[in-house]
Amino acid sequence: MSHSIDERLAKLGVVLPDAPTPAANYLPYVISGNQLLIAGQAAVVDGKHKFVGRLGAELSVADGKEAARLAAINVLAQAKAACSGDWNKLARCVRICGYLNATSEFADHPQVLDGASDFLVAALGDTGKHVRSVLGASSLRSRTVLVIDAVFEIKH
Amino acid sequence: MSHSIDERLAKLGVVLPDAPTPAANYLPYVISGNQLLIAGQAAVVDGKHKFVGRLGAELSVADGKEAARLAAINVLAQAKAACSGDWNKLARCVRICGYLNATSEFADHPQVLDGASDFLVAALGDTGKHVRSVLGASSLRSRTVLVIDAVFEIKH
Amino acid sequence: MSHSIDERLAKLGVVLPDAPTPAANYLPYVISGNQLLIAGQAAVVDGKHKFVGRLGAELSVADGKEAARLAAINVLAQAKAACSGDWNKLARCVRICGYLNATSEFADHPQVLDGASDFLVAALGDTGKHVRSVLGASSLRSRTVLVIDAVFEIKH
Repeated sequence: MSHSIDERLAKLGVVLPDAPTPAANYLPYVISGNQLLIAGQAAVVDGKHKFVGRLGAELSVADGKEAARLAAINVLAQAKAACSGDWNKLARCVRICGYLNATSEFADHPQVLDGASDFLVAALGDTGKHVRSVLGASSLRSRTVLVIDAVFEIKH
Repeated sequence: MSHSIDERLAKLGVVLPDAPTPAANYLPYVISGNQLLIAGQAAVVDGKHKFVGRLGAELSVADGKEAARLAAINVLAQAKAACSGDWNKLARCVRICGYLNATSEFADHPQVLDGASDFLVAALGDTGKHVRSVLGASSLRSRTVLVIDAVFEIKH
Repeated sequence: MSHSIDERLAKLGVVLPDAPTPAANYLPYVISGNQLLIAGQAAVVDGKHKFVGRLGAELSVADGKEAARLAAINVLAQAKAACSGDWNKLARCVRICGYLNATSEFADHPQVLDGASDFLVAALGDTGKHVRSVLGASSLRSRTVLVIDAVFEIKH
């Protein structure tokens, strides 16, 4: 499994970044029993929010989908850090939740969150499949376009 | 237990539908350890959203409450599918979360989500009791009025 | 641990209230396996919402931060009740999620939720550290400024 994830990421052209540092007084991840919980991740690259604004206004569905992919890359970077780099500890992705900075007219939430789901399945294969919920938020920190959190199942 | 749930549903006049297919690239449910997680369910009947619009604008609290009941019926349909139809595997409902497509003036979130909670307790008895959170979303997929996700505890 | 939590609360000048009663048909907490899930708590003191309105409009970041502290106090009151008053049963705080009644212009969500995180870490020490997500809600029950829910890990 370890090999195949690294190979898949290489094929996708994705280099996992160092796991981003939390923006405030909280942990980036917590392991409790067989669950690994990841704090909400934004589409932050090199410390900068890549998409700022609202879906349905300044930002398009394509922007949102790319942001979701970037946030999911950060989710996976946190998961790797939580496993001390050992992918064999990661049993599966269980759930993601997407909070989209979106106007009251926006209706294409699934297409946006697919940017995250597609990446997780492409990177992790069948163990990347998950349940999810997605909703429009009235606003998000730093006016970022979306935040995604996640639960994984791990092996000890 | 198996019998009593089917009997309760019959008394309520509820026939569980086939579990709805996800709208995008995700699973309808995942079992992880003793937890069964259900993806966000809308008030979809026969593939169609029954209530489209916002609480506090086009839609009333009564509309929302009925939508919450319908979404909870879909939640329970997913739970039944996850248990391969064997209610004995379902230990209890642990948590639901309700995302309501609501204006900034709307304030009756608990009354709306009671449509789901009341149904779950009526159908499952004491094992249907749960914790919950509810919030107004700025928008939801397909402009549906609400989405509800859930966590159940299962027995293997 | 038991002693140190009570001592820390005393130093903070916090007297935990009786755990608030749910506003509708749900439980204040559920224990499932090693997880303790707490239903969404508001900044309610003596049965009254202390901050009503929206962040970015009538209410300031300082208001929100104090509201988050008050909601976290109610979260901890529920956790204590769930442990029948025995702090030794509480292994750690795992996760909180903050729903902020906020305008579309609001961007200071982390500062607000720090009111809850800071309190939990001050009261519980290292076992109070957690992952979290925070988002703007379009509206909340009774127009309260925020709702916070939580997951703890417990020992049996």
